[in-house]
Amino acid sequence: MRINPHYLTLPKNYLFSTVAAKTREFQIKYPEKSIIKLSIGDVSRPLPKVVVAALRKASTEMGQVKSFRGYGPEIGYPWLRQAIANFYTNLGVHLADDEIIISDGAKSDSSNLLDIFDRDATVAMCDPVYPVYLDTNLMLGRQPQFLHATAENNFLPLPDDSIKADIIYLCNPANPTGVCYNREQLQQWVDFARRQNAVILYDAAYACFIDDNSLPVSIYEIKGAQECAIEICSLSKMAGFTGLRCGYTIVPKKLRTKEGVSLNYLWQRRQATKFNGVSYVVQRAAEAVFTQEGLSCIQANIAYYRRNLRLIGATLQKLGWQFFGGVHAPYLWVRCPQNMTSWQCFDYLLQECGIVCTPGVGFGQNGENYIRLTGFNSYTQTRAACRRLLRLQKC
Amino acid sequence: MRINPHYLTLPKNYLFSTVAAKTREFQIKYPEKSIIKLSIGDVSRPLPKVVVAALRKASTEMGQVKSFRGYGPEIGYPWLRQAIANFYTNLGVHLADDEIIISDGAKSDSSNLLDIFDRDATVAMCDPVYPVYLDTNLMLGRQPQFLHATAENNFLPLPDDSIKADIIYLCNPANPTGVCYNREQLQQWVDFARRQNAVILYDAAYACFIDDNSLPVSIYEIKGAQECAIEICSLSKMAGFTGLRCGYTIVPKKLRTKEGVSLNYLWQRRQATKFNGVSYVVQRAAEAVFTQEGLSCIQANIAYYRRNLRLIGATLQKLGWQFFGGVHAPYLWVRCPQNMTSWQCFDYLLQECGIVCTPGVGFGQNGENYIRLTGFNSYTQTRAACRRLLRLQKC
Repeated sequence: MRINPHYLTLPKNYLFSTVAAKTREFQIKYPEKSIIKLSIGDVSRPLPKVVVAALRKASTEMGQVKSFRGYGPEIGYPWLRQAIANFYTNLGVHLADDEIIISDGAKSDSSNLLDIFDRDATVAMCDPVYPVYLDTNLMLGRQPQFLHATAENNFLPLPDDSIKADIIYLCNPANPTGVCYNREQLQQWVDFARRQNAVILYDAAYACFIDDNSLPVSIYEIKGAQECAIEICSLSKMAGFTGLRCGYTIVPKKLRTKEGVSLNYLWQRRQATKFNGVSYVVQRAAEAVFTQEGLSCIQANIAYYRRNLRLIGATLQKLGWQFFGGVHAPYLWVRCPQNMTSWQCFDYLLQECGIVCTPGVGFGQNGENYIRLTGFNSYTQTRAACRRLLRLQKC
Repeated sequence: MRINPHYLTLPKNYLFSTVAAKTREFQIKYPEKSIIKLSIGDVSRPLPKVVVAALRKASTEMGQVKSFRGYGPEIGYPWLRQAIANFYTNLGVHLADDEIIISDGAKSDSSNLLDIFDRDATVAMCDPVYPVYLDTNLMLGRQPQFLHATAENNFLPLPDDSIKADIIYLCNPANPTGVCYNREQLQQWVDFARRQNAVILYDAAYACFIDDNSLPVSIYEIKGAQECAIEICSLSKMAGFTGLRCGYTIVPKKLRTKEGVSLNYLWQRRQATKFNGVSYVVQRAAEAVFTQEGLSCIQANIAYYRRNLRLIGATLQKLGWQFFGGVHAPYLWVRCPQNMTSWQCFDYLLQECGIVCTPGVGFGQNGENYIRLTGFNSYTQTRAACRRLLRLQKC
């Protein structure tokens, strides 16, 4: 049996399992103490009514001969692709509906996109980073170049000539740091990629949190981006689809090699060969998200999480703890007080406040001395957590 | 931009697009003639009531805070994996629930499984073959060894020492030929794979059609199979899930390299990194399939397709046309009359009967002079098609 040898060199990612184990131990030791998770990377608000209604209607259709649907188009139904294209038109971005390819989510797409690139292509990504980008490249035997995100550059590294990569990952707004590039900074990346003939894999999974009209929501609001960037989008955080599973990836037809090969063709070929499309009922649910009613409901959910984020942010300010992000993203990237390491700070918050956070070092070396907090818990729990944090001040 | 060069060497698969184009042309030329598709590779019976009820219930849950579900386990919910494990217990096959990994379907799994094997692993597959096995290997730059399936071996090739492969694809019952290995033949394959230290990728997508208690439904009914085989299963044909998308792959923990590396670990690692699990509502639907009511409803659907297959088979016998399969699979593999080529026969059936078939040569060189018919159309349409076929006799 000849297995992929690179799987054996993967670092075992103990981050979330260690967080869970330590939390469990604490709970056993102090059964009377209540624990609040500000480590949650998952939505907690339910699906909007209009989405549930669409799901139920589609489910009923599947039980009747006349409305039953078998295999759909591998790249998604035209009505959903068109609804998304219309959404982009409102941003001033004009896309053909077959430049939008529906999938089961951004995690799958960001991983599977590597299939269409040369095995020997080089990659660059931030440190700290969403672990999926790193692990999927290690699985191919690649050692990525890291773009150092630190407090000095506000965790927003910019291009320079030391970067040599065929593929550049940008997650914007960023996971785990919660920061967001502005238009001028993104233009620098697009210009750089075009000069280097590189492709930007632009992960826009958190774009729905952008709270400033001057910031681009899509990379295609940047001049020249259709010639160098693939945008990966998800309904997970935008519309609460983490359990329902739907996303989409935009591969513009202008994105071509020097020899004229279309990356849109390559991605469609990959998906048509290796994928059979997203569940019909889920696509109907996604279609409902892009209606007027759907969009207004999901704004209410995002506003709910934003209120949590503002509350945590105000609390950290009162404590005098430095932090990044939390405005245009559901993540706050907090400098550990008193020069604690990430794990020391994790233990400190658990012991003193019963609060669970995510140690920043789990996302890369530059994450040391930071923790990640999220706005995804309920408002009641978030408020209780903030009260506990403020008590630290009095000690 | 450094793209995967192997994509450019892929043969453009014109099979289904040419079938569609020729059908369209015919319809334009003869608008008054009715066309019947015996080429359909998709189910047409709607989902059972119990499945629709489960879908609707899960949809409602997703709209309420208390019952909302976000990210689920990447390998599927334990209740679904346990329901499937119980189904196998009834076959006398004992599996731990984490040997069963839920996915969006057999096409994805049979493609993605290649990730866990060495890039330089060699592969063997039948000719004719399900095109996905071939294309996904060509995408990696591999040239597979073909196992020749012909009338001489009843389209069921058996192992011999000329076969040198690290990975052996077996689709049983077979697509496109509709034939099925018996227990003794499968034992030969398992013994061979173990001698050669090869892995069998066993695609059991059509196992639900097996209509003889003496034939194994799972490869794990064969002695030693847990040490050498991965079984890929789908609810698509079994339960009408082609549009809903759910399947599962069994990777036994006994399947290990000589060094002791578990392929179950590798596959779970692949899925946890590159996939975020199947939609919660779809998993609830799948769970309903494995209830007593669910299993009895899907048997009724399979019986419906079987009646179509028997009718087509009886018609071909009256015509004196040789064919294979059609008993333990939804496919009839028909020798073209009068030594026609596959495409000549396609044109002939379309012209004379308004019947659309799939030319066998589209599945490989050994498919030349054959066509594939399926039992997936409605009984009314299938009966009408058979009447038209019988009229050919009188000419």
